[in-house]
Amino acid sequence: MRAVGIVVEYNPMHNGHAYHVARSRDVTGADVVVAVMSGNFLQRGEPALVNKWARAEMALRQGVDVVLELPAVYATQNAELFAWGAMACLEALGGIDTVCFGSESGAIDWMLELAERLAEEPEGFRARLREALAQGMSFPKAFGQAVNTWRAAQGLPPLPVDQPNNILGLHYCLALRRMNSAIRPVTIRREKAGYHDAAPTDKRIASATAIRRLWLEAGRLDAVRPYVPETTYAILRREEEAARAPMHWERLYPLLLHQFAVLEADEIAAIVDVDEGLEHRLLRAVRTAPSFEAFLRAAKTKRYTWTRLQRALVHLLLRLTKDRFRALDVRAGVPYLRVLGFTARGREFLRRRKKHLAVPLVTRASQLDHPLFAFDLRAARVYALGYPPEVAAAEWNREFRQPPVQV
Amino acid sequence: MRAVGIVVEYNPMHNGHAYHVARSRDVTGADVVVAVMSGNFLQRGEPALVNKWARAEMALRQGVDVVLELPAVYATQNAELFAWGAMACLEALGGIDTVCFGSESGAIDWMLELAERLAEEPEGFRARLREALAQGMSFPKAFGQAVNTWRAAQGLPPLPVDQPNNILGLHYCLALRRMNSAIRPVTIRREKAGYHDAAPTDKRIASATAIRRLWLEAGRLDAVRPYVPETTYAILRREEEAARAPMHWERLYPLLLHQFAVLEADEIAAIVDVDEGLEHRLLRAVRTAPSFEAFLRAAKTKRYTWTRLQRALVHLLLRLTKDRFRALDVRAGVPYLRVLGFTARGREFLRRRKKHLAVPLVTRASQLDHPLFAFDLRAARVYALGYPPEVAAAEWNREFRQPPVQV
Repeated sequence: MRAVGIVVEYNPMHNGHAYHVARSRDVTGADVVVAVMSGNFLQRGEPALVNKWARAEMALRQGVDVVLELPAVYATQNAELFAWGAMACLEALGGIDTVCFGSESGAIDWMLELAERLAEEPEGFRARLREALAQGMSFPKAFGQAVNTWRAAQGLPPLPVDQPNNILGLHYCLALRRMNSAIRPVTIRREKAGYHDAAPTDKRIASATAIRRLWLEAGRLDAVRPYVPETTYAILRREEEAARAPMHWERLYPLLLHQFAVLEADEIAAIVDVDEGLEHRLLRAVRTAPSFEAFLRAAKTKRYTWTRLQRALVHLLLRLTKDRFRALDVRAGVPYLRVLGFTARGREFLRRRKKHLAVPLVTRASQLDHPLFAFDLRAARVYALGYPPEVAAAEWNREFRQPPVQV
Repeated sequence: MRAVGIVVEYNPMHNGHAYHVARSRDVTGADVVVAVMSGNFLQRGEPALVNKWARAEMALRQGVDVVLELPAVYATQNAELFAWGAMACLEALGGIDTVCFGSESGAIDWMLELAERLAEEPEGFRARLREALAQGMSFPKAFGQAVNTWRAAQGLPPLPVDQPNNILGLHYCLALRRMNSAIRPVTIRREKAGYHDAAPTDKRIASATAIRRLWLEAGRLDAVRPYVPETTYAILRREEEAARAPMHWERLYPLLLHQFAVLEADEIAAIVDVDEGLEHRLLRAVRTAPSFEAFLRAAKTKRYTWTRLQRALVHLLLRLTKDRFRALDVRAGVPYLRVLGFTARGREFLRRRKKHLAVPLVTRASQLDHPLFAFDLRAARVYALGYPPEVAAAEWNREFRQPPVQV
């Protein structure tokens, strides 16, 4: 069985994603599609609109065969560590021939070449990155600038490293290179809606951002219908009817306020991504902020982007401290693989892989007691506390009851 | 101006309380009644039904002239420390001639005599108390038994130290004795409804417990009306209409679940009143408990009474750690006096006292930055998070806007 790996968030899974799954299978000739998916909290430091079980089901109904959960500790990090965690999952599973991702560029050669150069951590690049970060630039911006000024100094032309999916793709290549992985990266050009496009740009295709906005701001799930597969729509409706969706930051804001009420500044500074005195800025901003959005607007600066702040706040909610993070040794490879769901073909693939695995394949939360996994459970529980109280009470221990989704 | 001190919770203020205020003034011939009142969390480890500002107003409308807030760190402790904190407030204010409290016994002589003996910390008593506690008895029960077996060993008759208001009264006497205070304790016999009576026992008098039950369980504030002054009733209605009442533990349960989701067992064990492995019991009990009540029922034992568990859980919500508690040095006397409200007469009394005070008289939260006071602010903020989200956002910083209530 030939297998292709993909890295997804599906917040929610829309027509563009379904197209990406089908194309990934086609261009790589794969029999099996294995997705590494973020759990309940996403790379931009947000809770997913619907929980990971529902999103895993969306994936399985649109051609994905296996959904593995990207451990929570990787899911809310910058492109570099996010990509590293995702590639480490595919590498740990093994049997994966290619990884296929969308990018604005659609060309893999420059990514592979740049990854090879960056893998050696050249000082010319490192120094420029440090400098750009010290100027208060956000990581993606600093990264793009450092790459191109470093190349210019060598007389090389600039590369399109300022586009989010190019950056992510480059980091997949870089992670695979660093792991000496045999997985071959493949990219397909992203068509239609840009990642950040806020409004639908086509009759059937809209970005996840646009879709979220339609649901959250207009409060109209039916407005979303043209842009998502019918299978996704049915799941979204079910989750909305069960009062589990749409989840958003405002629902978790009381938990955040509680942390700011009872933690000392130095305890907040101990949280991952709370750096350079950010704790004081947050404590000031939260004092009179009537909503999460107002809070973030008050705290935001050029240096502390919306995404960076949101990540720090997820880490605060999950109590991911710098000490704990260091002890987790996230560069050592993933110590388990959490299975969120599979199709019949996916099950067969997992059965074959099982005897070769060096890490446990976790299908029940009670099977594993590991400090990295503890954060996945935290993330699931904290997310559930954003539901209305009666739903929260019922869902809060779901991880220990929920078997993998089978489609 | 002759002044009498009283210690109250007013959860809520009912006809029996109003009678106590009037009697306290009469029997002591006082011109001014100064109440030390618990803030938003009470001695039984519960959030008050209505917030402290509303309760201060109830008091001022029924004959109390000054309401001081008992610092939160004392308010949710056993009788001994609760009483110590309350007496320390009256002693720090000064100008108080008597303290007047209700008791089942109604006689002060045995309390004064027993307090004098206990003040010396006799080993015969101490050893018996330790032993009773080691057997798993609750503090009030162990205390009563230790007193009477110790007295029996000396051929002395038993004393009624098994009734809650007698115990509290005795501890007021003991605290004053230890402070070498000149304040003279006076007790009046509690009439009618016992402290724990669940159902009304008279046409106009019902215990606060019975009143809370009528409101919370029957959901009928009007059913409460016969048992409270009209001034109280109007305030309760206003608070209910503003969605600030009735507050209860279930509303804070999500915050508690969050703590159990993200704290390690040893971090829970670091909280005041989480002793002897209680953290493991709590973590087990919370795993499948759909409500605060179910959680407490699952955690409760003979040793861990409902009250003791609730106190530990308040401390967890406020993040009152053993280290922090030790550093606060609560036996050193209160470092400030927080004024929640006053009448015209009360204001005149405070004006006269002001020049004699060794500690700040705080009428605005922004006036003081003190680690003990920080817990009062935490308590107010955490309590506000039990309101519906929009109300919570508006109320969460109220401490910094609210001036003393003036009646």
